Amino acid sequence: MNKDQVRKVLQDVKAGITEPDEALARFAGLPFEDLIYARVDHHREIRAGFPEVIFGQGKTPEHIVGIAERIVASGSNLMVSRTTREVCDLISKVAPHAEYHKEARMITALTDRTERGRGTIAVISAGTSDIPIAEEAAVTASAMGNRVWRVYDVGVAGIHRLLAEREGLQAARVVVVVAGMEGALPSVVGGLVSAPVIGVPTSIGYGASFGGLAALLGMLNSCASNVTVVNIDNGFGAGFVASLINRKSE
Amino acid sequence: MNKDQVRKVLQDVKAGITEPDEALARFAGLPFEDLIYARVDHHREIRAGFPEVIFGQGKTPEHIVGIAERIVASGSNLMVSRTTREVCDLISKVAPHAEYHKEARMITALTDRTERGRGTIAVISAGTSDIPIAEEAAVTASAMGNRVWRVYDVGVAGIHRLLAEREGLQAARVVVVVAGMEGALPSVVGGLVSAPVIGVPTSIGYGASFGGLAALLGMLNSCASNVTVVNIDNGFGAGFVASLINRKSE
Amino acid sequence: MNKDQVRKVLQDVKAGITEPDEALARFAGLPFEDLIYARVDHHREIRAGFPEVIFGQGKTPEHIVGIAERIVASGSNLMVSRTTREVCDLISKVAPHAEYHKEARMITALTDRTERGRGTIAVISAGTSDIPIAEEAAVTASAMGNRVWRVYDVGVAGIHRLLAEREGLQAARVVVVVAGMEGALPSVVGGLVSAPVIGVPTSIGYGASFGGLAALLGMLNSCASNVTVVNIDNGFGAGFVASLINRKSE
Amino acid sequence: MNKDQVRKVLQDVKAGITEPDEALARFAGLPFEDLIYARVDHHREIRAGFPEVIFGQGKTPEHIVGIAERIVASGSNLMVSRTTREVCDLISKVAPHAEYHKEARMITALTDRTERGRGTIAVISAGTSDIPIAEEAAVTASAMGNRVWRVYDVGVAGIHRLLAEREGLQAARVVVVVAGMEGALPSVVGGLVSAPVIGVPTSIGYGASFGGLAALLGMLNSCASNVTVVNIDNGFGAGFVASLINRKSE
Amino acid sequence: MNKDQVRKVLQDVKAGITEPDEALARFAGLPFEDLIYARVDHHREIRAGFPEVIFGQGKTPEHIVGIAERIVASGSNLMVSRTTREVCDLISKVAPHAEYHKEARMITALTDRTERGRGTIAVISAGTSDIPIAEEAAVTASAMGNRVWRVYDVGVAGIHRLLAEREGLQAARVVVVVAGMEGALPSVVGGLVSAPVIGVPTSIGYGASFGGLAALLGMLNSCASNVTVVNIDNGFGAGFVASLINRKSE
Amino acid sequence: MNKDQVRKVLQDVKAGITEPDEALARFAGLPFEDLIYARVDHHREIRAGFPEVIFGQGKTPEHIVGIAERIVASGSNLMVSRTTREVCDLISKVAPHAEYHKEARMITALTDRTERGRGTIAVISAGTSDIPIAEEAAVTASAMGNRVWRVYDVGVAGIHRLLAEREGLQAARVVVVVAGMEGALPSVVGGLVSAPVIGVPTSIGYGASFGGLAALLGMLNSCASNVTVVNIDNGFGAGFVASLINRKSE
Amino acid sequence: MNKDQVRKVLQDVKAGITEPDEALARFAGLPFEDLIYARVDHHREIRAGFPEVIFGQGKTPEHIVGIAERIVASGSNLMVSRTTREVCDLISKVAPHAEYHKEARMITALTDRTERGRGTIAVISAGTSDIPIAEEAAVTASAMGNRVWRVYDVGVAGIHRLLAEREGLQAARVVVVVAGMEGALPSVVGGLVSAPVIGVPTSIGYGASFGGLAALLGMLNSCASNVTVVNIDNGFGAGFVASLINRKSE
Amino acid sequence: MNKDQVRKVLQDVKAGITEPDEALARFAGLPFEDLIYARVDHHREIRAGFPEVIFGQGKTPEHIVGIAERIVASGSNLMVSRTTREVCDLISKVAPHAEYHKEARMITALTDRTERGRGTIAVISAGTSDIPIAEEAAVTASAMGNRVWRVYDVGVAGIHRLLAEREGLQAARVVVVVAGMEGALPSVVGGLVSAPVIGVPTSIGYGASFGGLAALLGMLNSCASNVTVVNIDNGFGAGFVASLINRKSE
Repeated sequence: MNKDQVRKVLQDVKAGITEPDEALARFAGLPFEDLIYARVDHHREIRAGFPEVIFGQGKTPEHIVGIAERIVASGSNLMVSRTTREVCDLISKVAPHAEYHKEARMITALTDRTERGRGTIAVISAGTSDIPIAEEAAVTASAMGNRVWRVYDVGVAGIHRLLAEREGLQAARVVVVVAGMEGALPSVVGGLVSAPVIGVPTSIGYGASFGGLAALLGMLNSCASNVTVVNIDNGFGAGFVASLINRKSE
Repeated sequence: MNKDQVRKVLQDVKAGITEPDEALARFAGLPFEDLIYARVDHHREIRAGFPEVIFGQGKTPEHIVGIAERIVASGSNLMVSRTTREVCDLISKVAPHAEYHKEARMITALTDRTERGRGTIAVISAGTSDIPIAEEAAVTASAMGNRVWRVYDVGVAGIHRLLAEREGLQAARVVVVVAGMEGALPSVVGGLVSAPVIGVPTSIGYGASFGGLAALLGMLNSCASNVTVVNIDNGFGAGFVASLINRKSE
Repeated sequence: MNKDQVRKVLQDVKAGITEPDEALARFAGLPFEDLIYARVDHHREIRAGFPEVIFGQGKTPEHIVGIAERIVASGSNLMVSRTTREVCDLISKVAPHAEYHKEARMITALTDRTERGRGTIAVISAGTSDIPIAEEAAVTASAMGNRVWRVYDVGVAGIHRLLAEREGLQAARVVVVVAGMEGALPSVVGGLVSAPVIGVPTSIGYGASFGGLAALLGMLNSCASNVTVVNIDNGFGAGFVASLINRKSE
Repeated sequence: MNKDQVRKVLQDVKAGITEPDEALARFAGLPFEDLIYARVDHHREIRAGFPEVIFGQGKTPEHIVGIAERIVASGSNLMVSRTTREVCDLISKVAPHAEYHKEARMITALTDRTERGRGTIAVISAGTSDIPIAEEAAVTASAMGNRVWRVYDVGVAGIHRLLAEREGLQAARVVVVVAGMEGALPSVVGGLVSAPVIGVPTSIGYGASFGGLAALLGMLNSCASNVTVVNIDNGFGAGFVASLINRKSE
Repeated sequence: MNKDQVRKVLQDVKAGITEPDEALARFAGLPFEDLIYARVDHHREIRAGFPEVIFGQGKTPEHIVGIAERIVASGSNLMVSRTTREVCDLISKVAPHAEYHKEARMITALTDRTERGRGTIAVISAGTSDIPIAEEAAVTASAMGNRVWRVYDVGVAGIHRLLAEREGLQAARVVVVVAGMEGALPSVVGGLVSAPVIGVPTSIGYGASFGGLAALLGMLNSCASNVTVVNIDNGFGAGFVASLINRKSE
Repeated sequence: MNKDQVRKVLQDVKAGITEPDEALARFAGLPFEDLIYARVDHHREIRAGFPEVIFGQGKTPEHIVGIAERIVASGSNLMVSRTTREVCDLISKVAPHAEYHKEARMITALTDRTERGRGTIAVISAGTSDIPIAEEAAVTASAMGNRVWRVYDVGVAGIHRLLAEREGLQAARVVVVVAGMEGALPSVVGGLVSAPVIGVPTSIGYGASFGGLAALLGMLNSCASNVTVVNIDNGFGAGFVASLINRKSE
Repeated sequence: MNKDQVRKVLQDVKAGITEPDEALARFAGLPFEDLIYARVDHHREIRAGFPEVIFGQGKTPEHIVGIAERIVASGSNLMVSRTTREVCDLISKVAPHAEYHKEARMITALTDRTERGRGTIAVISAGTSDIPIAEEAAVTASAMGNRVWRVYDVGVAGIHRLLAEREGLQAARVVVVVAGMEGALPSVVGGLVSAPVIGVPTSIGYGASFGGLAALLGMLNSCASNVTVVNIDNGFGAGFVASLINRKSE
Repeated sequence: MNKDQVRKVLQDVKAGITEPDEALARFAGLPFEDLIYARVDHHREIRAGFPEVIFGQGKTPEHIVGIAERIVASGSNLMVSRTTREVCDLISKVAPHAEYHKEARMITALTDRTERGRGTIAVISAGTSDIPIAEEAAVTASAMGNRVWRVYDVGVAGIHRLLAEREGLQAARVVVVVAGMEGALPSVVGGLVSAPVIGVPTSIGYGASFGGLAALLGMLNSCASNVTVVNIDNGFGAGFVASLINRKSE
């Protein structure tokens, strides 16, 4: 119920068409329905073109396909993370345009491919083992309408490999940096660029990496001021936020 | 040594004013000075108007004032974090326009007040005890040329206070959310807005808050996809990244 | 030594068969057996209608069935947690009224279905992955004679879904809130209701959720004063305590 | 704005006293104020007689006194936790009936002393060093209109002291158990009573108590099913929830 | 109800004054008082000569002196741990035989000095900084009637110092080993002797010693099978258990 | 160089075959071989009758059988922990008297069955799931020549079961207490007996038991002074130390 | 681009062969290419004879063989860690001189076997279970051209075994010490030798060893000043650094 | 028993004064005294010129001065770590050549200034706050007879500052890298040099640096193979090991 509708009710009260108590009753459920619909509307406007995302881990293929079917039917872009080629094959039956991204372990089924980003999103990985998470970020950002520039295997112990990409990095609008072990790469990249850097710690490592804790703490304590951090192995989240940052105004 | 200076040397060599070996000596170490100047230049362009920042914690007043003096002399904007009014008084002698921000425990001395942000940066705090960190973020963002909208004391246990600000939040270009204890507020805000949300866990709490660890873990595990996180009590970092995100293209 | 035996000694004293001091000597070991029977009696009175519970995890099917058989034979209600349909099939042979609750991974075999609760127990889950633990709480509370109202998938990142259930929540006598990841839901619910809220952190999540630690810490640090917490994934415990709180006076 | 006030406005609109647009202006922001009033109303009914609580830790005396003054003026009961006698002396000027509870480090200023509990709340402490936290729980519960029964210094290493109080414990409607070090007492008490037990770990201990972590983990892993837990040293929270559980229906 | 009261009831039963069932009813509360007296008696016999111990940390001088006075009056040996010379001076007024042990930070006031140990208790410390805790163990064992042999500053990085004491160690009936930092000494000692070894980790160290955690974990993981461990800095506990182990049969 | 060789050198010196300084030179490497033989000798005397122990976990059956064969051949008692019935079958070929202890997952092959203990070792377990570790302690103590009294399933949440065994416990010379979850049992037992108590935390539990950490911390922080602790699940170590404590003097 | 090349350009500028702006252009990319090639060159010189190393864990056999093939083709020595005999068989097809080291789980294929060490590298292990990690260190050091002396199964609980090797240890130029459980061995060895000691904690242990954390903390807190530490189970790293320390000057 | 005493016994055997078996008996206690003198001798040879070191933290000035006096009297070089200028003033009375190193918080009093290193030891710090720990390493290495090259404030977020020192770093024989916060610097340096790198994590940082834990984990997980690590803030240990590595052969 919006302002105009409230005014209408009030005018009806004035006009004697509606009794005060009847009006009161109509206002009863107002706050929340109003809130909800407002929020949805607002979001519809802002979020136009965002894919609907299914977090695949821990869901049965049937469950995923069921949700996917509804999304595809609604005409939205679809994205499934942490899933398998088998699930993609099932989805292909309802969405022939579905694609499986092997390294990212993701499915995308895109109908709207409008470019929505202002600049390039760079996705950097420290080691080759970090690539699956980096790809999760890259595929996400790409499916959300961004140009993505991948720079993989440029860990800090061979700093010249990173420096060789300096110019490209400095041209990016956002940089996603994916690293396991000591998680030092975001700090170094953060010092090279002026753009926001999103650090993604990975669970790559052994022993005192404690499942990614070392990398996570490393990134949180970064001495570069332009670094923020997402959860361990959360490539999707990094790609998602990078897309929000890079998004053209509307 | 910048490009023009290098060209000048080369022209002098051509003109016979400077001998090749003399030029070589002047280039000694060039690659890195060059690197530096490149980086600086690049940064100068991008970073125009950024204040120079001094992290005050653990530095003596003399040390801070010394650095501050040089920055002010260079004509740059100045920002000192985690400091005291006493330090501000000392700085005022060389920079009469220095201001002390009591709650943020910061000093700013701004000469360039150009507006550089595309939209508004909302800074939200969960409890009143979180305000100093929220102010650190707000003052930082403001000094970096952004319009800042403060919404304090809207913790999740009184969700209606937050919802009452829904419209303002949805209009913001970036939202900084500062919370201690369980650190739940970024998740709730993340669900209400489409903008990037930067969570700042604070060390406010006791017992099992473990100095902010509970809030930090809460934010890292946020079920809202648009949340990234900075270190515990790092209001400055959040304000800084928010400014980068909000920055107008140049 | 049970009540009858004590009475027998006393009668012998009366009859002059046993001397007082001799009786005293025979009472030497009395206290504890007596304690036991007293305690049991006391509990019998208070606990009437409580199901006997078997924690199935780590027990062999034979072991579970053996205990179950004795409970059923005694006429008590039976409840088995963390078990499988196979075990239920075995139990059905001695207790044809046994039911398997798939999502809760529980078996109930109830003969006494007296309603024992004063009001409704609401069981809320943040995500769909938290449902098995929520069901464990719900089935427990239900088997203990309570009306249970389930509200699932109302996580904090979509706060309107929760607000839409506000009235139901505010009518509940106790609220069990089940959440993994950042564990923020109990705080939000705690702020909406005046009833006691029991938070159940789940091990749902990845990376820095550290097997439910993040959710656990989040709930322990709740800024809502009406929240208490049980162990990670302990849906049974939450349902059990909720039943005690809701129990009619006797 | 409550229901009656809304109706009044509507009647005035009907009567032509108030124009629709004027009414609309008065409803500006209605949804949330409405939400608030709904919540408040609802709460007013449920919460009648609850003291307003100020968490004193980290607040200046002036700040506390300021809030206290407003609460006292509104006629509500007042409770301040983690505070000092000095603050109490200041509050006494505006609230002569303010009392300082030394061991609990709390202030209460009660005008409404209606009894609101159905039964007795037992507050038990393991050691003498745990008494301040136990008192925080006891004073809270007492100020909220409950009969409180204190049983202190009955730690598990001298189990007979606890057993000697068995009858009293079994008669209680809720039991708050406060313990540091190994935090074992709630398990033992939980086995003796049928009522809900709220465990409060304290930071009492040294070495591997890790500031109360040992006691906290001990209580969370309790083998007694009727135990829930609050944050380390959160005596107030335990007393508060115990009061909610014990509250008479209305 | 004590023994005499029980006898009285029984005599009344015999005399026909009390009916058996009436007597039975009066025995309802019996168990615990009886338990208490039984336990105390039993302990009196076993514990003869044990000093009564006051844990001084966190208690006011007045409190300590008050308890001490009662103990001394009862003729028992007295021991106060974690206390100061000032407290000793106060206690001296009621117990002129009180002695302050500076390094152990303990007071003893012994009237009964019977030797109660079968053999010698060796107390070993790794570094000089561990001596206060070692002395706590040594003074405790000594006050409990044992011969104590101190071997200090024989850390594992100078293994020859320890080996030089091999014979004495092998002759001891129990060995208490006090060590901070890596806590390796109990393992080495455990390999040299056949007696039980009690490891006491200390909080001595810095950085990754994490307040004694490193030493504690080191001792718990000892590859020597004859090592058990007490809490960090718990010299008293080690001296106490060592005394129990060494105690002559009675 | 063994004793005989040293004697030979000395005899050669006496006989004038070897000069003193030449002998001195040959003794250069002496200390350690000498140490070894001394130590072994010393141990042989003290350790008479101790079984040789093989820690089976992580060793191949062949490896275990190989070591076992040598031990059996030497006439010593044999004990294998953390092993399987299959390994026992293999060992039976060389040691027909080998026995497999199913719950303890141990093998014993004893030829010397001399009783070596002064009193009884009580082995207590909190829950039925703790029995394997309790049995490891019991079988170890038994194989080392002790009378062992088992008391299982007497957890603190049903304190009467434990109290019913009070007399037996108080008669024991050492008490081994095995408990998972909150690990509270050693504290309660410690308060009931005067003997040394060895706590064995187990990894039984879930959620915040963190693999036995909760139980471990609980036992280390025990408020009973007679409790020492071994590693999580280290039943063998507890049985071993209990045997050393209980050992008759020689 | 080196100094001479820069001088050449300058001379060409002087000679009018090259225009200043043309020279400037040629200097454009200078810093990084120069850096990179310098680094490589520099490394080539210093690193001569180092094997190229493939970390096998988490790589497919095909991936490993592919990289191996290129290395072998280049004539370099090859080393693969954390791999299997199956991979070795595949590599043998392109490198018939490939050897599989079973305990170390490594492959080496060496063509250059120049001795590059100044002295001996001692590799010591505490227990037999630590041998795989010790072998990883030993095979690495050996493949890098060092004499390696292995001393296994000399844990601190049998200190005489270690002391018997004292002379050999004191003659070593570097000592690698591999130990799990309490990780005490590096401290003891550190006290016996003057050489640098590299501690390698292993994940061997159970319970409170927490996957090697106990050993790691033990080594970091070593009271011997000559100990440094590598990651848990990082035998390769220890062997690598030991080789660098032992390397002959060039 | 020293060498002369052993020779005396042997001479008595030769002279027939002592029988071989009698001599054998007197050698019983021999090994360890002998060991000690052997070890000391051996060390004297190897360690010539090493300063004797006093760890000042936790020692009284009197204690330190007492030990220092003996060391100086023996003609050895003296080094005191973690101490104050006041202590230095006291030491100056007995050792007028004592120097106080303010930033390192160390005292040195050197008489032997022989150069003992083969090459240069580089000491690098990430931030200015890390300098005290870096100085501790540098002063230690210098006092042990090494050329030390300091490179401070070259943290990874400004990588060009580090690269500018590339040549110097590559010329060093050992590199000590001191860093707090994310502790990333050793990895970057490790990739630039072929020498062994010793990482020193510092406790500099706040929030999730957890007192240096983040830096420590970062260094342990370094992706550069030439990095080993010492305890948090252990500059002395790093300087000491660097000196051992750099030591000329003798």
